Amino acid sequence: MVLKYYYDLISEPSRALYILLKINKIPFKKHPVNLLKFENLTDEFKTKLNRFQKVPFIHDNDFILTESIAIVRYLSREYGIKDSLYPQDSKHQALVDEYLEWQHHNTRLLIALYTRHKLFKPLLTGDEPDLNLVSKYKRGVVKTMDKIENLWLRDQKFICGNILTVADIFAACEIEQPRMTGFDPTKGRPKLETWMNEVRKELDPVYSEAHLVLNELAANNEKAKL
Amino acid sequence: MVLKYYYDLISEPSRALYILLKINKIPFKKHPVNLLKFENLTDEFKTKLNRFQKVPFIHDNDFILTESIAIVRYLSREYGIKDSLYPQDSKHQALVDEYLEWQHHNTRLLIALYTRHKLFKPLLTGDEPDLNLVSKYKRGVVKTMDKIENLWLRDQKFICGNILTVADIFAACEIEQPRMTGFDPTKGRPKLETWMNEVRKELDPVYSEAHLVLNELAANNEKAKL
Repeated sequence: MVLKYYYDLISEPSRALYILLKINKIPFKKHPVNLLKFENLTDEFKTKLNRFQKVPFIHDNDFILTESIAIVRYLSREYGIKDSLYPQDSKHQALVDEYLEWQHHNTRLLIALYTRHKLFKPLLTGDEPDLNLVSKYKRGVVKTMDKIENLWLRDQKFICGNILTVADIFAACEIEQPRMTGFDPTKGRPKLETWMNEVRKELDPVYSEAHLVLNELAANNEKAKL
Repeated sequence: MVLKYYYDLISEPSRALYILLKINKIPFKKHPVNLLKFENLTDEFKTKLNRFQKVPFIHDNDFILTESIAIVRYLSREYGIKDSLYPQDSKHQALVDEYLEWQHHNTRLLIALYTRHKLFKPLLTGDEPDLNLVSKYKRGVVKTMDKIENLWLRDQKFICGNILTVADIFAACEIEQPRMTGFDPTKGRPKLETWMNEVRKELDPVYSEAHLVLNELAANNEKAKL
């Protein structure tokens, strides 16, 4: 039975895994889950699909696996991921893992908190955004972006060296997210901007396909400003 | 040259890796870093030891690696970790990885935020604790402990099955931490309490050695209450 992939392209790690599956030509059956319609919050979803009620996750026959980074490593063992993307060399793999672990409390956490309070919570509740929280988490995003510009990309073209890896896919899918709120974190950070353009170029057309909905929302936001 | 381990036993992941190194008999040179004396915040530390200025991390000759979970996986490849602790079987390893990734935004994040605002920040600044934040993050810890009790430990003795793995080491070292504030999350949760006692028993005497400072601080806290 073909691998089942549960995802919502509005979620950053969902896009990252979607791109990874596609560019490695891993066959999978699409199971989109609409988070904005709370499709993940039903009892049936919890008991039959994923007890943690999040996306992305996979069903590989009767084996259920959640957590995008655990899934990357499972896919690399079971289905194969190009060595350039997730290197078998122990030290190089360790450096890719280092970013994939670091991002949880940096890129992932802060961008998720910022976009939740700026965009998704107001959208779903009808309440005005809590401006104190929005500005607190935006400062967090700015600090994290400075770390990517000045530490991770300081002496190299990509996050973990001069070749694009899984780390760049996860980082880019996160850094696209705030554009939905009209905030593009690459602006004013020359290394980050050059890197983002390189990532998009190397991963297209799959990258653009995964970001179609996000790009539309970002464009509507721009129009609303005119 | 022997592996250099930089750590502070007051930090949860530092204790977890310390225990892991010891019980796997991996030779290492101890490099304690006193976080409460800000030893990690000097320029020399940043340029020579670890650009992210956190612990734990390792120097393996000239190879520097940060992020405790990335280090677990590097140690398993380069130095060997008992198969029961970090299984080579692909699906079992994936389930251990699933917890190690899940904990970042759950056990790790919430316990760190709770103890920072309840204990460390007031200790270092002399300010009173922000009671709103303390109570917000305590609610987060409670929710996470309920998930461990009702989801992870529901049908099994340990986090990822009926055998103790690296996941249990990381979980236990976190769940010990709030005892320094007089809050023991295992109380009132029978599965969690039984599990914690099992983990301590299986990993002693190394486990107690790693928790010596924490146990003293927790005991002083109890005395202060009398």
